Amino acid sequence: MQVTFTAAEISALVQPRAARGATAETIRGIAALDVAAAGDLSFLSNPKYKAQVTTTRASLLLVPADYEGEPGAGQMLLLVDNPSVALARICARIESLLWPRPAPGIHPSASVAAGAQVAASATVGPLCVVEEGAVVGECVHLQAQVFVGRRAAIGDDCWLMPGTVVAAECVLGRRVRLQPGVIIGSDGFGYEFVNGRHERIPQIGQVVLEDDVEVGANSTIDRARFSRTVVGEGTKIDNLVQVGHNVVIGKFCILCAQVGISGSSVIEDYVMLGGQAGVAGHLTVGRASKIAGGAGVTHSLPAKSFVAGNPPLPFNLDRRIHVLKQRLPDFFRRVEALEERVGVAEKTSAE
Amino acid sequence: MQVTFTAAEISALVQPRAARGATAETIRGIAALDVAAAGDLSFLSNPKYKAQVTTTRASLLLVPADYEGEPGAGQMLLLVDNPSVALARICARIESLLWPRPAPGIHPSASVAAGAQVAASATVGPLCVVEEGAVVGECVHLQAQVFVGRRAAIGDDCWLMPGTVVAAECVLGRRVRLQPGVIIGSDGFGYEFVNGRHERIPQIGQVVLEDDVEVGANSTIDRARFSRTVVGEGTKIDNLVQVGHNVVIGKFCILCAQVGISGSSVIEDYVMLGGQAGVAGHLTVGRASKIAGGAGVTHSLPAKSFVAGNPPLPFNLDRRIHVLKQRLPDFFRRVEALEERVGVAEKTSAE
Amino acid sequence: MQVTFTAAEISALVQPRAARGATAETIRGIAALDVAAAGDLSFLSNPKYKAQVTTTRASLLLVPADYEGEPGAGQMLLLVDNPSVALARICARIESLLWPRPAPGIHPSASVAAGAQVAASATVGPLCVVEEGAVVGECVHLQAQVFVGRRAAIGDDCWLMPGTVVAAECVLGRRVRLQPGVIIGSDGFGYEFVNGRHERIPQIGQVVLEDDVEVGANSTIDRARFSRTVVGEGTKIDNLVQVGHNVVIGKFCILCAQVGISGSSVIEDYVMLGGQAGVAGHLTVGRASKIAGGAGVTHSLPAKSFVAGNPPLPFNLDRRIHVLKQRLPDFFRRVEALEERVGVAEKTSAE
Repeated sequence: MQVTFTAAEISALVQPRAARGATAETIRGIAALDVAAAGDLSFLSNPKYKAQVTTTRASLLLVPADYEGEPGAGQMLLLVDNPSVALARICARIESLLWPRPAPGIHPSASVAAGAQVAASATVGPLCVVEEGAVVGECVHLQAQVFVGRRAAIGDDCWLMPGTVVAAECVLGRRVRLQPGVIIGSDGFGYEFVNGRHERIPQIGQVVLEDDVEVGANSTIDRARFSRTVVGEGTKIDNLVQVGHNVVIGKFCILCAQVGISGSSVIEDYVMLGGQAGVAGHLTVGRASKIAGGAGVTHSLPAKSFVAGNPPLPFNLDRRIHVLKQRLPDFFRRVEALEERVGVAEKTSAE
Repeated sequence: MQVTFTAAEISALVQPRAARGATAETIRGIAALDVAAAGDLSFLSNPKYKAQVTTTRASLLLVPADYEGEPGAGQMLLLVDNPSVALARICARIESLLWPRPAPGIHPSASVAAGAQVAASATVGPLCVVEEGAVVGECVHLQAQVFVGRRAAIGDDCWLMPGTVVAAECVLGRRVRLQPGVIIGSDGFGYEFVNGRHERIPQIGQVVLEDDVEVGANSTIDRARFSRTVVGEGTKIDNLVQVGHNVVIGKFCILCAQVGISGSSVIEDYVMLGGQAGVAGHLTVGRASKIAGGAGVTHSLPAKSFVAGNPPLPFNLDRRIHVLKQRLPDFFRRVEALEERVGVAEKTSAE
Repeated sequence: MQVTFTAAEISALVQPRAARGATAETIRGIAALDVAAAGDLSFLSNPKYKAQVTTTRASLLLVPADYEGEPGAGQMLLLVDNPSVALARICARIESLLWPRPAPGIHPSASVAAGAQVAASATVGPLCVVEEGAVVGECVHLQAQVFVGRRAAIGDDCWLMPGTVVAAECVLGRRVRLQPGVIIGSDGFGYEFVNGRHERIPQIGQVVLEDDVEVGANSTIDRARFSRTVVGEGTKIDNLVQVGHNVVIGKFCILCAQVGISGSSVIEDYVMLGGQAGVAGHLTVGRASKIAGGAGVTHSLPAKSFVAGNPPLPFNLDRRIHVLKQRLPDFFRRVEALEERVGVAEKTSAE
């Protein structure tokens, strides 16, 4: 951590209900209770670690308002309603100090087409490319080596990190964050098989990312064949995720790393997809469904499904089968034994 | 869509066998029959949607030559041999209008080594790097922020989109399209375990992409140890696919998103690999095989295999086992019941 | 191959125990015994190919010291202790000739902040960005279009290939190699669900890659929430791998392509993860464990585990179940037959 705080500064940030003890240490780091050292801030967010509060070496501690213990020597306790929320507030402050908003303006090494519209409050960092007809909104931050294609539109307060690509015609809402290497608007994967060759079907649609969407490093979202690939408001996408053309993802979904959604599928609101899960094409995954990591969804699922496996089964059934299948070797032996016993019985009965 | 057409212009493009009705609307979009609005072009390519032609609000419709219905008010039908092919022709036209070929020449912000050969008809866009000894063919389009390494060769009419990397010595045939973020020629993953450490085996071979290969966003293809990693003519690769060193992929294959092919495996012509499928190293997947999404190929497969699962099984067997395994809980109960009944029978018989 | 050698030059490199025969050919390539042509170097590293030595058309051959055959006309044998090691030495030489170390210095097109420290012996290639406070060590090679963020530190002798991103605060040890498109220090994927929305948890930690770590093309490693994501000394990571925030990977591990490690998991030393394997969050994979390709690790594993499947099972059990499950259709029939036979037996016995 490259920033430091006094205990008083942190107290001012989190506005505790009360405090106990005092520390003269400058707070130079954040650490879990069991590994914290002098100069660290720590926190009790999970009651099961309560005993560690009395043994931790942290200088400053965020504890729940009903915590009753006393601080050690040179230790200060801040009693707050919700230590996690208090910690998040401190981290947000650190984040803004570590990576302050850059000054507005276009870096001289950037290549911005004459016909592009860049808001005066936006920052276009070094070695970015903004093509003809693109629109870059208020307070947008194109960090470095970003590409914004023809007539693409970047909404207010977006942050595009190094090496991101927003291809022609694509549209980002407000406060969209693209981690490094994200590709928005690559061609959909569509071919017709004609005379023994795959002929490319032109992909002339868009990608639309609604407000507050975040996309993880090196993820890819393909443009639609002629309409729109959509990611709904507030949906969060992790690293190395693939979203095919014409997919429509609802609001407030979570797509963990390396998920793949094939073309034209619909993911309704509040769906959660575990890491490396896949969804085949032209399906619907119903609202608030949960798909376990590594699952392969080969048919549509109703709302609130909870599945695992490929093809998918209800999660509990999948896990029960997982237990039973380990008994298969024994089971085969039991059936063989039965066959023998029945054979003996039949023989006896025939005699 | 940023381009518009009159009905007459579209008619001129698709050369219909006949037309019925007329529309004064400017055509501003393309949409499926059920969602089309006034000003949209729509099409009947799948007979099961035939009834929708009479209710669609589209202004202009591509229908099969044997379609017998009449247009609605202000609606025009174009009767064509193959509505899908006609639509593709229109989309190709739109594509060329949306993204016209840029003018030839080297952008002043590009960094092109003195000893690189760039054809006069080629376009080297902003912030590209072309290293010493590289050859860039006729009408090639290096869009922006592209990297072409030492002695790499880019064949005529290739299009390399923003952020692609073609590393040293690699060779692209003609009309190769690389979507944004593609990496061609990263080092093969080869180590020898010596004295408790993994020692790197130098990877000094090439990658060769033959004519008409297309590679999807952020996919990676490793260079060979000392010979060539090859992707055959007309093979199409989707996003986030990994192709290991010394792999040889045949002609006209389809690799869907997030497929992984381990080192030295051979994929023969016309193979199709579903999304997230994996192939272990040093195997052969026979000609025209189909590998289901998520499958893990752990042994070589003969021509025309159709498999699913990890390890893979014939597709129909895999699906049959999937059905049977859901009956395992009941099945275990039945065997237990049998054991009891046989025990009773044995007892009876012994009496 | 763009470099050539005389047989004498190669002999000088590998220092053979003895030589037989002679060749006047210039050595222009390396090839396996069965495909080698005149002008090629070949080698016998696996005894099962011994017979091919007598039929190969290679001009120069690396053979074990105890090899007894004679060379063909115009063919030369070099007898060495270990042909593989000898070959690696030649390849390393070729590599250094193909891709010589560039001259030190900062390319005029690079954007290096005033407050960045770049060693005089380092090379900052075209169109790189080095932000404020970053430290670039001795003999570092930032090849082209590389991004090094605020206060990031790149250790001596690192090679960052085109399009790599090392985000703010991240630290690379010595001799780290990043293949093209690697992202180090993207935000961890952490949200709290508050009032129906996913609120971002600031990610203010680092990524630390220790000495001799290598990371494959387009792989992504997330920064920690507030501490460190760590990849231990000598660990090798293949392409398109995802490492989540707060993960700690030990020394000398191997992560094959498209592996995913979820947040806060611990991978101990010498673990090997096969392609497309996944590890869920907050688990420990014990020292020297082997995880088969495509496996999904859903619980912690003790040292030296060898597992496959999702959830994982001991490898041999998984493979045995794979065999047995193919017999399930027959097995169901056998149980049905048994039920019938027992029914008959019961009836008979009741009569």
